[in-house]
This record gives sequence, C-alpha cells and structure tokens, in this order.
Amino acid sequence: MSFKEKGLLVVLSGPSGVGKGTVCKALRTRGTRLKYSISATTRKPREGEVNGVHYFFKTREQFQQMIEQGKLLEWAEYVGNCYGTPVDYVRESIEAGDDVILEIEVQGALQVKRKFPEALFIFLAPPDLEELKHRIVGRGTESADLIESRMMVAKSEMELMQNYNYVVENDQVEKACDRIEAIVLAEHCRVDRLIEKYTVMKGNDET
Amino acid sequence: MSFKEKGLLVVLSGPSGVGKGTVCKALRTRGTRLKYSISATTRKPREGEVNGVHYFFKTREQFQQMIEQGKLLEWAEYVGNCYGTPVDYVRESIEAGDDVILEIEVQGALQVKRKFPEALFIFLAPPDLEELKHRIVGRGTESADLIESRMMVAKSEMELMQNYNYVVENDQVEKACDRIEAIVLAEHCRVDRLIEKYTVMKGNDET
Repeated sequence: MSFKEKGLLVVLSGPSGVGKGTVCKALRTRGTRLKYSISATTRKPREGEVNGVHYFFKTREQFQQMIEQGKLLEWAEYVGNCYGTPVDYVRESIEAGDDVILEIEVQGALQVKRKFPEALFIFLAPPDLEELKHRIVGRGTESADLIESRMMVAKSEMELMQNYNYVVENDQVEKACDRIEAIVLAEHCRVDRLIEKYTVMKGNDET
Repeated sequence: MSFKEKGLLVVLSGPSGVGKGTVCKALRTRGTRLKYSISATTRKPREGEVNGVHYFFKTREQFQQMIEQGKLLEWAEYVGNCYGTPVDYVRESIEAGDDVILEIEVQGALQVKRKFPEALFIFLAPPDLEELKHRIVGRGTESADLIESRMMVAKSEMELMQNYNYVVENDQVEKACDRIEAIVLAEHCRVDRLIEKYTVMKGNDET
C-alpha cells in the first residue's frame, strides 16, 4: 500500500493572557505527539542555544530575504528583534507525517491563514472575560489605564475567533489539552484525509 | 448567560461485518457520554422489553403513519418486521444537550443524511479488505458463493464512505472507541457551534 498520511499544521492562538504558553508546555509534558515549530530569529543566540534546535539564527539581511522570498509563514518584530516561522521546516515535517504545532499571537495566525489555509486553527479562549481580566491584572502591578487598554486589545482579539476552525476553552489546562489532542486525532479521521488510503486499498485488492 | 449548547446526532455506520455492534457495546461499557437512540418497531415485545426503553412498540398502522408523516429518520424491514428511528426522540434529546448515537446500516445512514444533514456521519472501516473477509468467513460455515456475494456487498458499501464526515478504522475496538470519543469532543469545539456562546459573553460583559 503506497498511501502515506501527511501531518497537520496546528496553529494554537488566542488573546494575550489566555495561557497559550502554559497549555503548550502542558502538551509537551504529557508527551503529546506534536512537533514544535522552530522559529527563525535575528536575535543573537543565548548561551546554550543551538541553531536549528532552539531557533534558526539569521542575520537581518537573511531574515529580510526570507520575507521577500515568501519563506516565512508569519513574522513579527518584538523589542528590536524579528521572529518568524520558516515555511520549509513546516512543510517538510508535514510531508514526513509529523503534526506540527505553532503557538502564536492572533495577528501571526491570520498571516498563516493566508499562506497556509489548510492548517488547523485553534482559538484558545478564556472561560469568560472576567477571568481574562484577572489573568491580565495578576501579571503584575500595572496601572488601571494599562489594564483597561489590555482588556480592549484582548476583546478585539476575541473578535478574530470566527477565523478559526475550533475554539478550545482554557478553563483548566488539562481539559484544554484533552480537547486539543481530541481535535488533532479527529482531524486525522476526516474522510477527505483518508479516502485516498481506501482507494489505494481497493486498487490493491485481489480478493 | 443564556447560551445552551445542543447535543450532536452521531451516526455510526459501515459495511456489514465491520464490527459496528461490538464498537457500540464497548462505548457503552466505557461509559462514554452518549445516549443510545431507541428504535420504533412493529415487532412484538419480548419478555422483559419495556416500551420507550428498549423499543417504541408500534402497530403496522402506526408505523406506516410515522413513515407518511416523516416521523422516522430512517427505517427498514427485516424478516417481516419494521424498524425505524423516531425523529422526535432524537430531536428532543439533542435540544436537551445530549449526544445521541445511532448505529445503523449504510442504507439507513444515507436516509438519515437526507433528513438530518447536520448529523455527524462516522464510517467504521476495516483495516483492510482481507480482514473484512476473515470476519465474514468467521461468522459461520457459509458457502464460497455466499461469502463471495457478501464481499461484493461489503465492497459496494465501502464506496459509500465518501458520504461521511469521518472514517474510523476498526483495527482494534478500543482504538476505534478512542477515535469516536475524540471526534465527538472535537466537534463540540467547532467554532460554528461555540461562536454564539462568546457573542452572548460579549453582550453580557460589563468590564
């Protein structure tokens, strides 16, 4: 049988403060069979960081070239450094049958959707907006104005939910992980992914 | 918050001999939160069978009336008795938030698809056609001709896979159950099912 199932690109995103990093870390701890995407960055390597393991380290010029050549699924600049997702790494992993997970901000997810619409877009949502406020407030001793403006951003990010395939409520980290694992397993059972396998089966059948 | 999530109608079907009944029984044993549909039948109650629990017992006339009034999602006749799935029972359960599972033959599933396209159609598939043949042969001491004709039917039933949403391989019963549970959980996370909930949330928000 010559059917080889491809992997999935899973994009996990959601409003700031919802707990994307925590959920991703929990998935890793569980040993969920997901390959973590490696970002390209113009940031200098820190001690112990290995090129191609922690990041793909690039010069500004190389990074700029990747953007121009469409080699990045998405990219953004934070405090003077650029970060992006190399499309080749993602495509090669998927062709090899690996499910790749990408944990990014909502703006990045929209960029991915334009370039890779066949990805699986999962929106991590807070159980309610009060809870999100608690989490934003809980982060430190920000002023009321700053909290207010962060809530405004978070609410506008919530509006982007409709661009996603799935919504996973992050009421409890373990439950959120269960849902993400279920979504990935279910997507592998979708008829359009598997029908080729059974067509191959019928072709090879000698009964 | 006035959002109430509806249940799903899960239709589990697949070729004869694939093990639909075994998988359904295993789901019950596991305690998977699924409500089993109750069939209407013209068959006489056997000892211990309770109307509205094991079956809805109907006269021929009542059953015919249900067909004419579109009260059956699907129906079929076996050895002189009619069996069908009452649409009201299914709809009421779903409205109450229960996930209902229906284990039926492929012809019945096609009938349900016409009347209830929003249901979730899961095709239980054999790991390969040889395995299906083993199972069909293993049932008894049928003649080669009968086995051949059953295989013909099974193959034609395999062609109907494309009408389904998901394909679950029944390589191992427990694995098949895992996949079915994942599909149901994932479907509850689909954005089109949940977006209303978050619209309600935003409407109620006073932050």
